Amino acid sequence: MSGALLLADAKLADGRHVDVLCENGRVARLAPAGTLGASAAAVEQLGGALLLPGLVEGHIHLDKTLLGVGWIPNRPGGSVAERIAREKELRAELGGPSPERARRLAERVAAFGTTRLRSHVDIDAEVGLRGVEMLLALREEVRHLLDVQLVAFPQSGLVTHKGAAELMAEALRLGVEVVGGLDPAGIDGDVEGQLGAVFGLAERSGAMVDIHLHDFGELGAFELRRIAAWTRSTGLGGRVAVSHAFALGMVDEATFAATAAALAEAGVAIMTNGPGPVPMPPVRQLTEAGVVVFAGSDNIRDAWSPLGDGDPLSTAARIAWRQGFASDQDLELAFALVTGNAARVLGVEGYGLHEGAAADLVAVRVEAGVPEAVAAHPPRALVVKGGRVVARDGRLA
Amino acid sequence: MSGALLLADAKLADGRHVDVLCENGRVARLAPAGTLGASAAAVEQLGGALLLPGLVEGHIHLDKTLLGVGWIPNRPGGSVAERIAREKELRAELGGPSPERARRLAERVAAFGTTRLRSHVDIDAEVGLRGVEMLLALREEVRHLLDVQLVAFPQSGLVTHKGAAELMAEALRLGVEVVGGLDPAGIDGDVEGQLGAVFGLAERSGAMVDIHLHDFGELGAFELRRIAAWTRSTGLGGRVAVSHAFALGMVDEATFAATAAALAEAGVAIMTNGPGPVPMPPVRQLTEAGVVVFAGSDNIRDAWSPLGDGDPLSTAARIAWRQGFASDQDLELAFALVTGNAARVLGVEGYGLHEGAAADLVAVRVEAGVPEAVAAHPPRALVVKGGRVVARDGRLA
Repeated sequence: MSGALLLADAKLADGRHVDVLCENGRVARLAPAGTLGASAAAVEQLGGALLLPGLVEGHIHLDKTLLGVGWIPNRPGGSVAERIAREKELRAELGGPSPERARRLAERVAAFGTTRLRSHVDIDAEVGLRGVEMLLALREEVRHLLDVQLVAFPQSGLVTHKGAAELMAEALRLGVEVVGGLDPAGIDGDVEGQLGAVFGLAERSGAMVDIHLHDFGELGAFELRRIAAWTRSTGLGGRVAVSHAFALGMVDEATFAATAAALAEAGVAIMTNGPGPVPMPPVRQLTEAGVVVFAGSDNIRDAWSPLGDGDPLSTAARIAWRQGFASDQDLELAFALVTGNAARVLGVEGYGLHEGAAADLVAVRVEAGVPEAVAAHPPRALVVKGGRVVARDGRLA
Repeated sequence: MSGALLLADAKLADGRHVDVLCENGRVARLAPAGTLGASAAAVEQLGGALLLPGLVEGHIHLDKTLLGVGWIPNRPGGSVAERIAREKELRAELGGPSPERARRLAERVAAFGTTRLRSHVDIDAEVGLRGVEMLLALREEVRHLLDVQLVAFPQSGLVTHKGAAELMAEALRLGVEVVGGLDPAGIDGDVEGQLGAVFGLAERSGAMVDIHLHDFGELGAFELRRIAAWTRSTGLGGRVAVSHAFALGMVDEATFAATAAALAEAGVAIMTNGPGPVPMPPVRQLTEAGVVVFAGSDNIRDAWSPLGDGDPLSTAARIAWRQGFASDQDLELAFALVTGNAARVLGVEGYGLHEGAAADLVAVRVEAGVPEAVAAHPPRALVVKGGRVVARDGRLA
């Protein structure tokens, strides 16, 4: 992997000052500050900066970004279907998925201390598997920066869009790890049909599941309970996520409680991304009901949104704002959404900052701890991936 | 004031590349790029960076920030009254208002290109006029960075809080320009009593008005219509603002339309600040109804919120996110909230970027124009106040 790297005088989230020795891509030793001085070839003096496990981006669309092609004004659409059609026009104008644009976004998020991410990738009759193949190649090229997990995303529908199911199956054979879905009611008009296809693909391939669900109110809540039921019946608990799930912020208390209980019992996680114009899932209440909540950037300067920065700590702060989080306890929950909770959903083994963990680490210069890191989210002082320094002072090294 | 300063090869919002000559604190000349080369003593090469009028912070609390005292965990409160009580405890523990903390925040916002701001300042029986006096002194010290306008803010109530009205009157005599108010129903329990006191103070002193209104739903909408009525009857149209006005995002269409029409007709502006956990005023609809909407940071790392960065462009982006803004037209409206609209509410004469305007300017390195500046809001390349460079690359010069 790499030579030894010593991170000297790092502050941990619990306040201890430690030296962290990275060897062979792992945290080999973690000892009181000043005690591991002579043991490493390379030394990074952190001077008491807060050291955290590498950030985890739970939901991004690397294939969609328009970064690097100049400013393209957003063409606001009406329905989701209209926006999908407009995105396809633009994609065609730009000559299809681009490794340069995707790479630019991957490098940007890496500089923010993201060491793992889950990217959805569009699959439809027009683009075929070109996006998938592009990201499968890119993830090898950026492996020194971050680990990329891919979701086969049927952005145009799965049941009603000709050939989508076959393309999805082929994507999984090529190495995509997660089966995506999209508004079984709103897009395919066939809840059981789409969920049957999604869970069938997952069962046959051993893949995880991550379904975009924008459908509102009672309809969305119904679909969430159906997803929970499919998760239980296929035994995929702990390997299924639903992204957005705005419905959880819209239904009455009893419907929320029943839906949250079904999700928790089945092992279905919920991804949220902050301050949209619609109600958002209540993160604290879901957490208290036993649902794993995680977070992601979603769209970053693409046909869906001109906004987005790709910084998981800034995402956590935006979510905190939108959720009314202010206490340290709440800010720590916001932090968990872009670290431990996201790692759990992505199926990362041994995530964290302890001896034996992957040496995927990020240092932030704050006076105090995790709550301040979320609130202030300054440029990252140092980012380490697999025991090697990949970014410094907010820029790739 | 200062010697001449030439900003060479600046891109304007309309795409023209120009040279901008600043003399005696004003924009003296504005001509095609490359034509004013030899005329100035000092030259700043902008290399095509986007040059904008200085940003305007419409709502901040310089006296409340805890910047500079280390991380103080937020103590979440229940009601507004409980939170006010907790803030007072903390203020007492910290020895009252602090010019060091306020100055730190003023310098931070200046580095973001803020050249004018409106700060509320707490007035109550415990703090008396200490906050007012502190900020009156500070504004002289930071005049080279930005212009500070002050609002006498009766955070503990005006009618029911002993001595508040007298302190408010004294604050206005000392040089505070705006009369504040706070939830006439929710805090004072006396809508006509508080509004009578606020508008009476404004009429007698010639001050403007800016009232915090958190009261929800029908109650808040009723108070907005009463504020409109008081504005009409006192002839203060164009000099009155309401901050937050969450009620506008909560009421039915007919009530919204009637309330917005009353505000527009009376000349009452609305301040909003983004992605809170409650509904927000609909910015586009208010604008179309003829209401001037502006924006501000509100709390920045203080007893009310651990969040906030003080960057008006980032505030505009958060508002865009929360409002579902994506088109260039909508992002330009978000930009107006922190520039022209806010300047209008603050009563700034000749605001803008034209010959004769104050040489309060900010340069941003983006490929395109204003919509990208909002969406990407990178560190400011250059900030000029009164014809002098005050910040560069995101840091005070």
